[in-house]
Amino acid sequence: LRQGYPEVIYCAGKTPNQVAEIVKAMCARGSNVIGTRANNEMYAHVKNICKEAVYHEDCKMITVKNQPIDMTQSYIVIATGGTSDIPVAEEAAITAEMLGNKVERVYDVGVAGIHRLFHKLEIITGAKVVVAVAGMEGALASILGGLVSKPVLAVPTSVGYGASFGGLAALLSMLNSCASGTAVLNIDNGFGAGYMASMINKL
Amino acid sequence: LRQGYPEVIYCAGKTPNQVAEIVKAMCARGSNVIGTRANNEMYAHVKNICKEAVYHEDCKMITVKNQPIDMTQSYIVIATGGTSDIPVAEEAAITAEMLGNKVERVYDVGVAGIHRLFHKLEIITGAKVVVAVAGMEGALASILGGLVSKPVLAVPTSVGYGASFGGLAALLSMLNSCASGTAVLNIDNGFGAGYMASMINKL
Amino acid sequence: LRQGYPEVIYCAGKTPNQVAEIVKAMCARGSNVIGTRANNEMYAHVKNICKEAVYHEDCKMITVKNQPIDMTQSYIVIATGGTSDIPVAEEAAITAEMLGNKVERVYDVGVAGIHRLFHKLEIITGAKVVVAVAGMEGALASILGGLVSKPVLAVPTSVGYGASFGGLAALLSMLNSCASGTAVLNIDNGFGAGYMASMINKL
Amino acid sequence: LRQGYPEVIYCAGKTPNQVAEIVKAMCARGSNVIGTRANNEMYAHVKNICKEAVYHEDCKMITVKNQPIDMTQSYIVIATGGTSDIPVAEEAAITAEMLGNKVERVYDVGVAGIHRLFHKLEIITGAKVVVAVAGMEGALASILGGLVSKPVLAVPTSVGYGASFGGLAALLSMLNSCASGTAVLNIDNGFGAGYMASMINKL
Amino acid sequence: LRQGYPEVIYCAGKTPNQVAEIVKAMCARGSNVIGTRANNEMYAHVKNICKEAVYHEDCKMITVKNQPIDMTQSYIVIATGGTSDIPVAEEAAITAEMLGNKVERVYDVGVAGIHRLFHKLEIITGAKVVVAVAGMEGALASILGGLVSKPVLAVPTSVGYGASFGGLAALLSMLNSCASGTAVLNIDNGFGAGYMASMINKL
Amino acid sequence: LRQGYPEVIYCAGKTPNQVAEIVKAMCARGSNVIGTRANNEMYAHVKNICKEAVYHEDCKMITVKNQPIDMTQSYIVIATGGTSDIPVAEEAAITAEMLGNKVERVYDVGVAGIHRLFHKLEIITGAKVVVAVAGMEGALASILGGLVSKPVLAVPTSVGYGASFGGLAALLSMLNSCASGTAVLNIDNGFGAGYMASMINKL
Amino acid sequence: LRQGYPEVIYCAGKTPNQVAEIVKAMCARGSNVIGTRANNEMYAHVKNICKEAVYHEDCKMITVKNQPIDMTQSYIVIATGGTSDIPVAEEAAITAEMLGNKVERVYDVGVAGIHRLFHKLEIITGAKVVVAVAGMEGALASILGGLVSKPVLAVPTSVGYGASFGGLAALLSMLNSCASGTAVLNIDNGFGAGYMASMINKL
Amino acid sequence: LRQGYPEVIYCAGKTPNQVAEIVKAMCARGSNVIGTRANNEMYAHVKNICKEAVYHEDCKMITVKNQPIDMTQSYIVIATGGTSDIPVAEEAAITAEMLGNKVERVYDVGVAGIHRLFHKLEIITGAKVVVAVAGMEGALASILGGLVSKPVLAVPTSVGYGASFGGLAALLSMLNSCASGTAVLNIDNGFGAGYMASMINKL
Ligand SMILES: Nc1ncnc2c1ncn2[C@@H]1O[C@H](COP(=O)(O)O)[C@@H](O)[C@H]1O
Ligand SMILES: Nc1ncnc2c1ncn2[C@@H]1O[C@H](COP(=O)(O)O)[C@@H](O)[C@H]1O
Ligand SMILES: Nc1ncnc2c1ncn2[C@@H]1O[C@H](COP(=O)(O)O)[C@@H](O)[C@H]1O
Ligand SMILES: Nc1ncnc2c1ncn2[C@@H]1O[C@H](COP(=O)(O)O)[C@@H](O)[C@H]1O
Ligand SMILES: [Mg+2]
Ligand SMILES: [Mg+2]
Ligand SMILES: [Mg+2]
Ligand SMILES: [Mg+2]
Ligand SMILES: [Mg+2]
Ligand SMILES: [Mg+2]
Ligand SMILES: [Mg+2]
Ligand SMILES: [Mg+2]
Repeated sequence: LRQGYPEVIYCAGKTPNQVAEIVKAMCARGSNVIGTRANNEMYAHVKNICKEAVYHEDCKMITVKNQPIDMTQSYIVIATGGTSDIPVAEEAAITAEMLGNKVERVYDVGVAGIHRLFHKLEIITGAKVVVAVAGMEGALASILGGLVSKPVLAVPTSVGYGASFGGLAALLSMLNSCASGTAVLNIDNGFGAGYMASMINKL
Repeated sequence: LRQGYPEVIYCAGKTPNQVAEIVKAMCARGSNVIGTRANNEMYAHVKNICKEAVYHEDCKMITVKNQPIDMTQSYIVIATGGTSDIPVAEEAAITAEMLGNKVERVYDVGVAGIHRLFHKLEIITGAKVVVAVAGMEGALASILGGLVSKPVLAVPTSVGYGASFGGLAALLSMLNSCASGTAVLNIDNGFGAGYMASMINKL
Repeated sequence: LRQGYPEVIYCAGKTPNQVAEIVKAMCARGSNVIGTRANNEMYAHVKNICKEAVYHEDCKMITVKNQPIDMTQSYIVIATGGTSDIPVAEEAAITAEMLGNKVERVYDVGVAGIHRLFHKLEIITGAKVVVAVAGMEGALASILGGLVSKPVLAVPTSVGYGASFGGLAALLSMLNSCASGTAVLNIDNGFGAGYMASMINKL
Repeated sequence: LRQGYPEVIYCAGKTPNQVAEIVKAMCARGSNVIGTRANNEMYAHVKNICKEAVYHEDCKMITVKNQPIDMTQSYIVIATGGTSDIPVAEEAAITAEMLGNKVERVYDVGVAGIHRLFHKLEIITGAKVVVAVAGMEGALASILGGLVSKPVLAVPTSVGYGASFGGLAALLSMLNSCASGTAVLNIDNGFGAGYMASMINKL
Repeated sequence: LRQGYPEVIYCAGKTPNQVAEIVKAMCARGSNVIGTRANNEMYAHVKNICKEAVYHEDCKMITVKNQPIDMTQSYIVIATGGTSDIPVAEEAAITAEMLGNKVERVYDVGVAGIHRLFHKLEIITGAKVVVAVAGMEGALASILGGLVSKPVLAVPTSVGYGASFGGLAALLSMLNSCASGTAVLNIDNGFGAGYMASMINKL
Repeated sequence: LRQGYPEVIYCAGKTPNQVAEIVKAMCARGSNVIGTRANNEMYAHVKNICKEAVYHEDCKMITVKNQPIDMTQSYIVIATGGTSDIPVAEEAAITAEMLGNKVERVYDVGVAGIHRLFHKLEIITGAKVVVAVAGMEGALASILGGLVSKPVLAVPTSVGYGASFGGLAALLSMLNSCASGTAVLNIDNGFGAGYMASMINKL
Repeated sequence: LRQGYPEVIYCAGKTPNQVAEIVKAMCARGSNVIGTRANNEMYAHVKNICKEAVYHEDCKMITVKNQPIDMTQSYIVIATGGTSDIPVAEEAAITAEMLGNKVERVYDVGVAGIHRLFHKLEIITGAKVVVAVAGMEGALASILGGLVSKPVLAVPTSVGYGASFGGLAALLSMLNSCASGTAVLNIDNGFGAGYMASMINKL
Repeated sequence: LRQGYPEVIYCAGKTPNQVAEIVKAMCARGSNVIGTRANNEMYAHVKNICKEAVYHEDCKMITVKNQPIDMTQSYIVIATGGTSDIPVAEEAAITAEMLGNKVERVYDVGVAGIHRLFHKLEIITGAKVVVAVAGMEGALASILGGLVSKPVLAVPTSVGYGASFGGLAALLSMLNSCASGTAVLNIDNGFGAGYMASMINKL
């Protein structure tokens, strides 16, 4: 394990006590910690045994920095189609930052407000890897894939209703993207996108 | 029935003889005729009894003009994402033209070549109604919906493979479009799009 | 932006505070406001900062009229199959009215009470565009499509149980309508139907 | 076994020889015979060993009448939405007739030509049981269910394309019918409908 | 309307007040009343305005008998696979009884306890029509269809978990039954089964 | 590798030459050989290089016995619902026999002819493990599971049409079996069932 | 019924009173008892009438041992991919133990920590039958199937999110396992796996 | 366009003439050419106008090298689960090589022969990026993701039958991989995987 490299807990389905015990053990080892899918009650238990723990309410993550983190110079762009996709994007962003990556957030630039995307073109094309987070029809991934020549990691979200079928519409849309250079993560899997973007950004 | 207004045959599942008999009866009434989903053999039978019949090979349509058609001044834009979507688009275009509408074709302007779309913006925004024909991820409908303030009729196509599931991916994508002013036709239903676009263009 | 043209907020997934802040900014600009998928708590926050705000409980919409609205003479018919489809229909109706359209409501005229439909035929055929809202088997859209020669916008609803699969049965039914001149919106998307009907009604 | 009651063979997946052998044995017992899903080659083999065998090309049935059949006075109405649904309807009709039922065919009366349905109302409402055969959106079953107060057996067909998904759209539509008094058969199962209609007609 | 024939309310999605108002109007007309999918709160409101109203807790039905009901001599068998299917079976049974049919309940006779089915064979084969209610794999319908020569109405239930997918497994199983003489209702649609069984029982 | 234990080739997707080469190498090692999903052309190539190769046309298997096979005393029952399921059953039977198991075939005993099942009860209950092969609604697995107290391996087949969806109906039915002691193989996977039955029979 | 062999209750969908009554009757017969899918309230009612009842909170089972249980010498391995799969695994383990089987638990050995699997190889390969419990992508079943030559019973779990679709991903994965000797249970059906593993272990 | 960088044609759905014309234009520009999904007839037409064109029969690709290609030192590993997955893997490999990447092929190392995987561990872990191509249950992607710390691009294939549903099982399995650092391409999309792997390998 490299210095400062965090250990990860998937908190969903664990009891608050179990989460706190795992954090405790990791802190005892001096590790940095990432906890995903954590609720307020889990955080309360963690906070009791570790004062430095931070809770990111929007993306339901707990992080602990027990060691300094070296940051990359190259950066990852994390973009969203709408504001409702931000929690998933933040899961990706916090994960990538805890793994030592510089992150640029470019939020709410989907087809409903596509002019905002064009204002951000410079920062987007300067990235080493792009994460596109979008629900409903998920067109953002295709649009970004068509505009940039860097790898695009597409994250469908469960945002939407009716025939979005819990993210299935965005998922299929992204898998069928006509723009080359795109690969797809599971629905709402911001963590996985941040993790893989970090792998690529550090090559 | 208005003068020049065509009668329509859905040829799929009929025998060549049945198709030719129906065309014969329609011509006897002096009607214009549209036949969709017609194969070469059907056309051969029709040609035998009606020399004026025309076969549109790419979209598998038979048309007969027994009467002059008044054309609209306002026009319908019919756009496609790729070249493989053209047969469905032509079904829409020929249908709309036989119904007396001026049509502008704007083909192959999807996300894989989105710069071509921007070169055609003027003609697109000048339309009274826009038909967006696209397979795979179907993002074209969302992009057009975001750019124009006229009704967009979205036609998913069965073009694609794997997780396109015969057009399902494009269909779901279009139903979930974040851009307001879009409604969706059945997969590959160029005829229905041309028909409804004509209704709207003539209001 | 035309005079009196409203700005729209999709409230689902926003906090009551966020909704109220957005309304505040819109009112400061003197805009009319449409908020969809808003709950009581959101309305309470909005009411605090804007006394003129109205809450439409059945369709969960907030509207604010800061400017007079010019109404069309031609009208939109909004029809439902049953009484349980009314919330979705009202979302369409209020949207269309806020956009300046005259609306005629023709509710509860589905196959279970199809005689009621025939009593309303005159008003239905007088419309410039028809919105058909129906759950379960969604046959209303096909029946209206067969009876009128104006564009029909079909809105499947999630009303039903069992093999309605959250509106999927009505959605597929409407996409496959044998009656020409029908296009389909997302399940429960009353807003989109009202918006597109307005576009067509104003052509 | 009642006098004249036929024996039934499901020919699909059997070799022509197997089919002919089974027919031979049944004829030896003096039974009437119904064979469904039989192709031309199967018929040729059967014809060789049984001169009285009749082939119904449109619905791919073989029938043999070795004994006279007593016919009911009450009758079954078999209706279709379009012309492409006729093969399935004929499978139901021939089955019911071989089982000794009087059958009235009311074909091509779906929403695309709903006025034809109203011309046939008297004959439809006079039936003891109604079979509604329709593909695409399957609305015919709901319309008939709403109009008559007799049991309706709904048979979805695989007629259609795109989002008809091989008959799934019609199937779901029929299962969700708002009109009481309807039950549903498998996609394209004309035989099953004719069989059950006969059971009901003979009560 | 025949004497004693009930009026029906589908209570789901209505407010307790709406339900009570409808019941009030029906009682004013002297009708018998069937309300399906009614909860305790609805019943409380109904009870306030109509003392004779009865609540059937297991199947969530409200019934009011304002007029005597003539009962049939022939009877309907209503069978279930397990005990968890009883609420749906009772919806069918109460509906059929309110419509004037004699009903025999044969519960908990599915494949897990198939010997119990054989003990009840006499009563089952004596019925004029059989309703088979089953969840999970829904084999009961096929077994009954194989044993009796009367019409079988199959009702899949949402009982089960995992790959039962809310009743889909039982639904598909029943649609594919190899035993002739079976037709299928929507998942959990006891009301529809009782209604159609009554139609058939009274022929 | 135990003496006489066969090597297995999945021939689908291989060229006839590739199949023949693999068989050649296996024979050179003195192994017995099982080839599944082999067509006539593959067999012709294999026959050329190995005179002892046998082709089982119904289940499309090639077998070569280069060594004697020790047979078990306990036996496996392989049952089918209909005659169309026999090819899959034979794939299981030949596989199990090549692996040294005594096999009892009990074919065509599904719900359409359930009396035939009861005539075979003694042989069925004497088995050490039962393989139930059935398409359409797949009820055979549940019925056998309810009757015997030995492990039942259920193999859904793609036999059927319409809502059988290529075997999905039988698959879901079998996964939801109410009878304990059943586990399920992939659709049409006779090989896998024969292989696992052999494992269990030899314990 | 063999001495000590338990009776089983599926508690889901029963009232606490019904569960307690059934347990009471079983205890009166001196039987051992297994109750699955039982909640705390059910247990409280059972405890009142039977002091020996034990509640297994993680897998929501109630057990009562009224008679001694003979244990096997051969054992069943029950393995899980992650910690969240343990409740389903425990349902299998407790079931198997109550049926008199020795069980070895090998938990949290999926692909995310595959080295842990290799540390347990000896105990795994010593089993007479293996139960593989896994959610998400369900790869554990394939890996175990590839490593051991004993029957593998694969239990998909509903653990996961997004495109796991409630266990569908794991279910399909397991049904398609390339490794021979695997059969599949319903999603989350730990009981069924424990029951069938016991059948096999006792052969 | 960088020197030597190829132009790409998706040949499916184009006529042989169209393909040849496009190749001709590209060669006139001196470009290297990649054509995917090309059949023999297309190649014959291309060969006529361009003698240097090469046809890769297994993966149905046409390539033309009009310019020298600079190759990377770092390499891409392309692995398959079985031999039937090789065509998709070759599409990825040829694409990556035409884009100037060193490629190491590691074929037929899935769970059915997992020992072969362990023999290749050194070459696999030495890669800069790994492409995992697998059908049926797609477990290879998870296993590689668990073993290597480099980005894994997972390509599900349509290899399999029954419940593989044309690659859906492998697709869902890969999207749900428990191993971090994996992203997924469309079913059978070898081209997309080779393209994206090249992007990553050249960072
Ligand atoms: N939100 C997430 N989605 C998918 N995988 C995750 C997520 N968070 C953590 N993980 C993975 O789960 C592992 C920890 O699981 P566990 O041991 O159950 O806490 C980590 O190593 C990650 O690979
Ligand atoms: N390609 C098509 N897709 C959907 N509907 C069509 C198509 N072509 C024709 N139709 C409709 O089918 C009707 C004719 O059907 P038919 O009477 O069977 O020839 C026309 O009036 C149209 O409404
Ligand atoms: N449980 C039910 N499932 C399906 N349809 C029902 C049910 N209960 C009542 N209905 C139908 O719904 C109609 C009443 O609907 P409503 O006017 O909305 O109360 C009745 O005439 C019945 O046809
Ligand atoms: N019909 C079949 N269905 C599933 N798996 C099979 C089948 N036939 C053979 N197999 C498996 O495929 C392996 C051989 O695959 P291969 O090396 O591609 O020939 C055998 O070891 C079996 O495990
Ligand atoms: Mg790109
Ligand atoms: Mg727009
Ligand atoms: Mg119309
Ligand atoms: Mg009726
Ligand atoms: Mg029967
Ligand atoms: Mg059993
Ligand atoms: Mg094994
Ligand atoms: Mg890894």
